[in-house]
Amino acid sequence: MIKRVAFAAVSIAVLAGTAALAQQQPPAPNPAQILAAAPKSHWRTVDPERTLYMDLDRGRVIIELAPAFAPNHMENLKTLVKERYFDELSIIRSQDNYVVQWGDPQEGENDAKPIGTAKAALPAEFSRKSADGVVWTPIPDRDTYAEQVGMADGFPAARDPKTGEIWLAHCYGAVGVARSTGADTGSGVQLYAVNGQAPRHLDRNMTVIGRVLVGMDILASLPRGTGAMGFYSMEGQRTPIARVRFASELPEAQRIPLEVLRTDNETFAQVTELRRNRKDAFFQVPAGGVDVCNLNLPMKGG
Amino acid sequence: MIKRVAFAAVSIAVLAGTAALAQQQPPAPNPAQILAAAPKSHWRTVDPERTLYMDLDRGRVIIELAPAFAPNHMENLKTLVKERYFDELSIIRSQDNYVVQWGDPQEGENDAKPIGTAKAALPAEFSRKSADGVVWTPIPDRDTYAEQVGMADGFPAARDPKTGEIWLAHCYGAVGVARSTGADTGSGVQLYAVNGQAPRHLDRNMTVIGRVLVGMDILASLPRGTGAMGFYSMEGQRTPIARVRFASELPEAQRIPLEVLRTDNETFAQVTELRRNRKDAFFQVPAGGVDVCNLNLPMKGG
Repeated sequence: MIKRVAFAAVSIAVLAGTAALAQQQPPAPNPAQILAAAPKSHWRTVDPERTLYMDLDRGRVIIELAPAFAPNHMENLKTLVKERYFDELSIIRSQDNYVVQWGDPQEGENDAKPIGTAKAALPAEFSRKSADGVVWTPIPDRDTYAEQVGMADGFPAARDPKTGEIWLAHCYGAVGVARSTGADTGSGVQLYAVNGQAPRHLDRNMTVIGRVLVGMDILASLPRGTGAMGFYSMEGQRTPIARVRFASELPEAQRIPLEVLRTDNETFAQVTELRRNRKDAFFQVPAGGVDVCNLNLPMKGG
Repeated sequence: MIKRVAFAAVSIAVLAGTAALAQQQPPAPNPAQILAAAPKSHWRTVDPERTLYMDLDRGRVIIELAPAFAPNHMENLKTLVKERYFDELSIIRSQDNYVVQWGDPQEGENDAKPIGTAKAALPAEFSRKSADGVVWTPIPDRDTYAEQVGMADGFPAARDPKTGEIWLAHCYGAVGVARSTGADTGSGVQLYAVNGQAPRHLDRNMTVIGRVLVGMDILASLPRGTGAMGFYSMEGQRTPIARVRFASELPEAQRIPLEVLRTDNETFAQVTELRRNRKDAFFQVPAGGVDVCNLNLPMKGG
């Protein structure tokens, strides 16, 4: 019924459903076939120790944290989560084509929720000095904001080849640490997720702490706040957070198993090449390149 | 109250509210000041003859059409709107981080809504042979998908300097013509708007017919469809379209006056430069460039 009007989506699943016109023998495998044929070693299980579940009435948001890029913020976040700081707080901001933000709307006020033993401010972790200790897979594609881009530990990232400095990129779904004007004023008590076109000018200006693996659709479809910068101006507009837990805090049977494609292998190289130059009959002109924020790393589960 | 946690947004209005630290005398004007000082000739009134109002129960979506890029599709759209084809149809698709799509869910079926005197299919209008007759303002910023990018008649666009070919870019809010596998199978009876990271691989593969000027927040916050490719699988999930009208069809007093910044002037150059290298005290590291999809052309009204 929808055939006439559906056009091919970015997702692997969809490409799989659109048989490539066989113009050669044998036909080139499509991304879904490539992924299905990938050995188990090309995938990694997402570590429950660095996976957050944020439960809203609309469903669960799953965030993978990037401790290599924000170790101190991750430590503080652990304290906050284990002391149940986020439970019964709420989504306080939804600005169209920018960010969704959550935490305590009263933060900084006299009636703010106590942050327990967590720290109220931390030195910025905007970038790392080098990619040492990180699984860094550069891609050759041109980027507006950086000399080099690629995937770092499974997160879209950018690097300065001259200095070696590397940082996580503000792509759709990136989770960052809100702060005030001073670079060292963030702590993790308020976090945000990018809900639109990548605001890459925030790169190296904000501590990026991870990315949403599951449930970005929930966050992105929240009604936009009508206050300044998309903050909800009235309490009733905010979406309550039932609880935030590390996956590792839940009994194993209650965890959601997730696997993400590793980037240091031929499978990643092949599906990335098919993002650059799609073999699907739908496409007349190949893009010839792919934005690091359009890689959408393949995932299983969730 | 929100000071501690609010971080600077992209919008001119927000930048205006954040006083730049005066490090020189006199302090450089901020974007809001530049825009306020711009002569009237740097703005253009959006032409009611190429402005569509799509009324949903959640509010009005205003689309500016780009006849220079899709003249035949615009003609067909005129016929469809004037014969009230879209009235009482609905939003039929909302795929996270891709597109929202509207039209007749039964299109192509026996029980499809008749399209009157409109055409059911048109030759593709994916690009123009040259920028002749278009207000083309290239920007020097690097782009992943094209050798040159800029604004064409006020729409984000890309150009091949070797051939002169020019096309509209699939940025957030871009409105395109849905089609089937064949390039010449679209007509405008189903349209889509980009609701996430720019799917620039669609450039030169789809007819882009305009962009959403007002109400993208409404479209982007629609619940995601649970069917394949984000189509709504049940009738009750679809958002009804009350009516679609050209602004020129309404009495003048009922039109919404909108002005968009022209791009062939110093005001545009200045605010674009402040997108590349923000002077706001919030930013530690200047981006040094701006993605054509992050230009967000300043607008008044709406």
